[in-house]
Amino acid sequence: MKEKGLPSTMTAVVKTKAAPGPQATEIKTVPVPKPGQAEVLIKVLATAVCGTDKHIYQWDSSMAGMVDALPRIYGHEFCGEIAAFGPGGRRPHLSEGQYVSAEMHVTCGACRACRTGQRHICEKTRILGVHGDGCFAQYVVVPAYNVVPVDRDVVPPKVGAFLDALGNAVHTTQVADLSGKSVAVLGYGPIGAMCAEIARISGAARIAITEVNAQAVAHARRWVKARRLEKQVTVLDLSRTKDAAGSLAEATGGGADVVLELSGAEASINLGLAAARRGATVALLGIPRDNAVTIRDYTNDLVFKGLTLHGIIGRRIFETWIKMLDLFRAGLDVEDLVTNEFTGLEDFHEAMKLLEDRSAMKVVFYPNGKP
Amino acid sequence: MKEKGLPSTMTAVVKTKAAPGPQATEIKTVPVPKPGQAEVLIKVLATAVCGTDKHIYQWDSSMAGMVDALPRIYGHEFCGEIAAFGPGGRRPHLSEGQYVSAEMHVTCGACRACRTGQRHICEKTRILGVHGDGCFAQYVVVPAYNVVPVDRDVVPPKVGAFLDALGNAVHTTQVADLSGKSVAVLGYGPIGAMCAEIARISGAARIAITEVNAQAVAHARRWVKARRLEKQVTVLDLSRTKDAAGSLAEATGGGADVVLELSGAEASINLGLAAARRGATVALLGIPRDNAVTIRDYTNDLVFKGLTLHGIIGRRIFETWIKMLDLFRAGLDVEDLVTNEFTGLEDFHEAMKLLEDRSAMKVVFYPNGKP
Amino acid sequence: MKEKGLPSTMTAVVKTKAAPGPQATEIKTVPVPKPGQAEVLIKVLATAVCGTDKHIYQWDSSMAGMVDALPRIYGHEFCGEIAAFGPGGRRPHLSEGQYVSAEMHVTCGACRACRTGQRHICEKTRILGVHGDGCFAQYVVVPAYNVVPVDRDVVPPKVGAFLDALGNAVHTTQVADLSGKSVAVLGYGPIGAMCAEIARISGAARIAITEVNAQAVAHARRWVKARRLEKQVTVLDLSRTKDAAGSLAEATGGGADVVLELSGAEASINLGLAAARRGATVALLGIPRDNAVTIRDYTNDLVFKGLTLHGIIGRRIFETWIKMLDLFRAGLDVEDLVTNEFTGLEDFHEAMKLLEDRSAMKVVFYPNGKP
Amino acid sequence: MKEKGLPSTMTAVVKTKAAPGPQATEIKTVPVPKPGQAEVLIKVLATAVCGTDKHIYQWDSSMAGMVDALPRIYGHEFCGEIAAFGPGGRRPHLSEGQYVSAEMHVTCGACRACRTGQRHICEKTRILGVHGDGCFAQYVVVPAYNVVPVDRDVVPPKVGAFLDALGNAVHTTQVADLSGKSVAVLGYGPIGAMCAEIARISGAARIAITEVNAQAVAHARRWVKARRLEKQVTVLDLSRTKDAAGSLAEATGGGADVVLELSGAEASINLGLAAARRGATVALLGIPRDNAVTIRDYTNDLVFKGLTLHGIIGRRIFETWIKMLDLFRAGLDVEDLVTNEFTGLEDFHEAMKLLEDRSAMKVVFYPNGKP
Repeated sequence: MKEKGLPSTMTAVVKTKAAPGPQATEIKTVPVPKPGQAEVLIKVLATAVCGTDKHIYQWDSSMAGMVDALPRIYGHEFCGEIAAFGPGGRRPHLSEGQYVSAEMHVTCGACRACRTGQRHICEKTRILGVHGDGCFAQYVVVPAYNVVPVDRDVVPPKVGAFLDALGNAVHTTQVADLSGKSVAVLGYGPIGAMCAEIARISGAARIAITEVNAQAVAHARRWVKARRLEKQVTVLDLSRTKDAAGSLAEATGGGADVVLELSGAEASINLGLAAARRGATVALLGIPRDNAVTIRDYTNDLVFKGLTLHGIIGRRIFETWIKMLDLFRAGLDVEDLVTNEFTGLEDFHEAMKLLEDRSAMKVVFYPNGKP
Repeated sequence: MKEKGLPSTMTAVVKTKAAPGPQATEIKTVPVPKPGQAEVLIKVLATAVCGTDKHIYQWDSSMAGMVDALPRIYGHEFCGEIAAFGPGGRRPHLSEGQYVSAEMHVTCGACRACRTGQRHICEKTRILGVHGDGCFAQYVVVPAYNVVPVDRDVVPPKVGAFLDALGNAVHTTQVADLSGKSVAVLGYGPIGAMCAEIARISGAARIAITEVNAQAVAHARRWVKARRLEKQVTVLDLSRTKDAAGSLAEATGGGADVVLELSGAEASINLGLAAARRGATVALLGIPRDNAVTIRDYTNDLVFKGLTLHGIIGRRIFETWIKMLDLFRAGLDVEDLVTNEFTGLEDFHEAMKLLEDRSAMKVVFYPNGKP
Repeated sequence: MKEKGLPSTMTAVVKTKAAPGPQATEIKTVPVPKPGQAEVLIKVLATAVCGTDKHIYQWDSSMAGMVDALPRIYGHEFCGEIAAFGPGGRRPHLSEGQYVSAEMHVTCGACRACRTGQRHICEKTRILGVHGDGCFAQYVVVPAYNVVPVDRDVVPPKVGAFLDALGNAVHTTQVADLSGKSVAVLGYGPIGAMCAEIARISGAARIAITEVNAQAVAHARRWVKARRLEKQVTVLDLSRTKDAAGSLAEATGGGADVVLELSGAEASINLGLAAARRGATVALLGIPRDNAVTIRDYTNDLVFKGLTLHGIIGRRIFETWIKMLDLFRAGLDVEDLVTNEFTGLEDFHEAMKLLEDRSAMKVVFYPNGKP
Repeated sequence: MKEKGLPSTMTAVVKTKAAPGPQATEIKTVPVPKPGQAEVLIKVLATAVCGTDKHIYQWDSSMAGMVDALPRIYGHEFCGEIAAFGPGGRRPHLSEGQYVSAEMHVTCGACRACRTGQRHICEKTRILGVHGDGCFAQYVVVPAYNVVPVDRDVVPPKVGAFLDALGNAVHTTQVADLSGKSVAVLGYGPIGAMCAEIARISGAARIAITEVNAQAVAHARRWVKARRLEKQVTVLDLSRTKDAAGSLAEATGGGADVVLELSGAEASINLGLAAARRGATVALLGIPRDNAVTIRDYTNDLVFKGLTLHGIIGRRIFETWIKMLDLFRAGLDVEDLVTNEFTGLEDFHEAMKLLEDRSAMKVVFYPNGKP
């Protein structure tokens, strides 16, 4: 396949060595990939950095085991325009130049989960940007099945850059109808911030946010102020709170109806169980540093409370995508999460530093220039 | 029982004769009722008129059959202050002078529905204001079980006056999580107006309202303007719409995810089924003039679409009440539905005229003076 | 493509003319079809006749409008062995000679329903045997996506012949957990008979069956006797029942928790609503002769009862298939529904007569000889 | 109140001292209790011993903290006949001499849980037999609200003796529709044995039981043989199984759809998570010896699998009771769980020994003679 107008090379962020830090990630020129059977080539307009990317950058043991071959272009949050179709890649709802994003979890399509509307838990899931080349590049190849049309008037590239992450947040909130509910958001990183905004737009009566990092606490307080949510929202700085469980229970009006755990910290997981109202619903998205987690009072906090816990991974394909895009029409506004924008990919190492010290919330790159 | 400070007589609106119109409803002085076993006497601060009351006033055949004895004080929407407890009527969460409202459907407590958290469908339900004396009066007696504490800072008497009706609306919307959904509201009487506002606060992506009455259409448009919902909300004046189903499908973005049918008109019920998206959820609250309703295309509009229909009656006791009170914290605002306020009950006949010609939306009386 | 061992011609049942009766359906020799892109050729071991096929045979107006081109091989219930793969048709879980059945509703894969695990309500569904050639033949072509592997030890060809119909029944029962429930089965044709057996194996406490046809009533009574269900199951012969609603309510212990309506008759639909317990769940699968259906007491039987109604079409793809195959392991036994077996397809006209007068329940053909 | 025919004293099993063993539990003569406001006196026909009672007998630290006053009559599983009504205790559905059982969790009726159909998680629950006198006696007093009429033809006293425990089991299974499912039952004490039988009657396709105790394993195997479930049920003797997770996954056909954890052992909880299919539902009823439980692979076994976990306490009041009684009509048979029957209460100490060494499964006493 040779499409007119397509360059033969492009700039990409490439993990080149099984080692941590700047010397193991290169911003370099590589060939533009070719879409294979039932695949689509997409020109990347905007792409954002996720926590997973930090782990790959730092070559943490968790991700090191998952990235199965090097060199690897990473990145798995983006939006762009369809540049070319591979053989069998055309679909009635897709056309050249179309503004799209994509689900980067590629599932097998044949297993029980895939055949019962549960692709997000397919055991054979391959993540582009981890198990295959990703979108920290000027072009990326994804299966046609995974491409999601987006309305550019509703979702500009600055926000389209991180729909994958926003989808995680939407999926987390899909465990319950939040209208009129008391919602605890544990951890105010980007996903937590998105969850809080989704809770707001979905009619939550009370939102209580917990955080330990001072910069993240400040972010949360700016959001409360900007949206005038002082009556409904409490931000608990856990580094200054003595009785976290008591304060959280109070902030949620006697216990949260819905707990969204995004940090993965054992202390936070236990805080969530302790501050949950009896009969509450708990969404567990956060991943602990170590795989083992001790539930401190399994008897009283989980069994006797009659809690319901949900493990959350990825996004429902495509229920979550559809809900997410519709939430923008309802007034969802996550643009203010973008604290830093870069044209080109050259400043990748700098972006990593900003994320490292949490002075940045969400960082967006425009690999083909500002759109 | 004789409470100090309690008067022995009061003003009440009494249906005195089995006939329609002003001559069969008297505003008169009657004894203050005494709370019996497990009952509570409440001083009525505010009370509102419901469609059912209009039917009693006009002695429509539907209600004439239900009002089992005359004279009868009617009215079943109100808020007030606890004035006295009958024997066995005290409860840990209730105290004299407390600001409360009440569920006016009195259920048997012994049947299968009552014993499985489904009191709203108890077959032996007695409605105060229909099967027993109601709240168009300065005082009303209700079972202690049915009393609902309300926070006066959150719900002022002007709104507390019609929590029963608002509960109907909340119950109607409880058939689905409205966040990100496309919602059709069929009929913009008071319940429809409340449903639309609940859909707004719950994060509906699109709301489409249908109405035939010009004054109601104007009400709806004022609400859209006041809330700045021009992008999200479409008001369809059915008296001027040729292809109602087509227009509604378009206004809902290709078919409503959730249809709320509040009119009971056969044409509206069929419109709702026709404009529902495949797999949609339909709430049926409206009551037709005649009991029979013809589904025009049962095969294609109901079976082949895989729709889910829910009949809605009353309020879930007390899930709906709790959600309703929490929605106020989330920003629910239905105060602008009150188009007319009256001090005392003397202007009852005038209020009926305003409701008759639909120039009034919601009429509130303050039987003991403006609070 | 030319597979070794594959014949070039085969016997098939072909609708040749837009007219009713034996002269418009021919049993004739036709070319063996070739599997196209992403398709699979299956050798038909067993195939069964469905109500839809009767309508095609009789060229009823309902089906006449759907069969878009003639000649057409009909039939859409079968099992067989994979004979050949078209280009791109191979799948990891499929192999030549494998025993399989297939979902014959071919959906678009691109619409909202298809992309949210709701393929059964895809608006662009094409049914093989109606909109494309079907399985009343020695070979049939289906999309690889639609092929369902079956364990021959668990489901012999005699039963594998009608998994499509059984799937309809399973889907109908999927509206509720039937364990401990009181279930009304309205109409004891093949689908009703399957529903009753599914209710039995799923732990229904009471099953009440209604029928008007004497032969079907006799079938039902034989099933009760064979399974020794006299204590749990009531068969109501509606042709001899005066107070159908009262008898049905009694047989279900005061009202059915779950009503499965399979006849499509207006009287039966109303009977189901009338005999449903308050708060009951009603599955509507039956299709009325005319599209319009009058609900006689919409107010009291639907709204005030707080019923939930579900329109049922096709099978959930593949949740229903998976549940169906697992139910056989639980002891589901529908083999006794097969009243007539034919080797070859030559006796098709005779089979139609047996079905016409309802002396047959389920008729199975073995187009390639008895397996 | 003095009812004719009622004795003034009775035999009861009384915890007399805050100490373990036979010397701290006396079988003695005490006054027949009098039913207070809204209470009912019941003559105990049959009562059974539960694990909780063993803990009280042994004065384990867990229960010692809960039994708030001594002496205390214990026991909370029973059936009997209504002997007398306290003031305000009469109900339309209750009459003297009626055969009944009772929910022994007495809830406050005023809290959010109680007022939203979730009485089983009322924070102020008092358990009769723990926080108040129980049913190891010839007579017991319970609130009228808690009395449950039972059909003696369907549930004889031998089985009515332990409906409370059976209710725990039914509640545990209410987390999912078991029809066609693969179900893991972890721990084959009485509750596990009941869960397995409920799974059987509800149409489970596969049931896998795990146990460490040789006598319990033998009980399980007898049940399999008696019901002829060799094809569907696997009993895993964990004391002889090397790869428990692997064996369990295999026995459930590649992972359990539904896991019922009844042992409370940390190893068993982790086994359940490891052997659950992706997307599975897990019911957690078992209580660990220590409150803390370590989830060994929280990341992979809970979050990435997308599991749903439910803490289970008590019985849904009265959804579980109703389902339980209806399951008997469906053929539920738990009579063979009763391994030992005693007339009178004198052999209480012996019964405790039988339960201690697990040679008994369920022990039933007839305090007023064999009925």
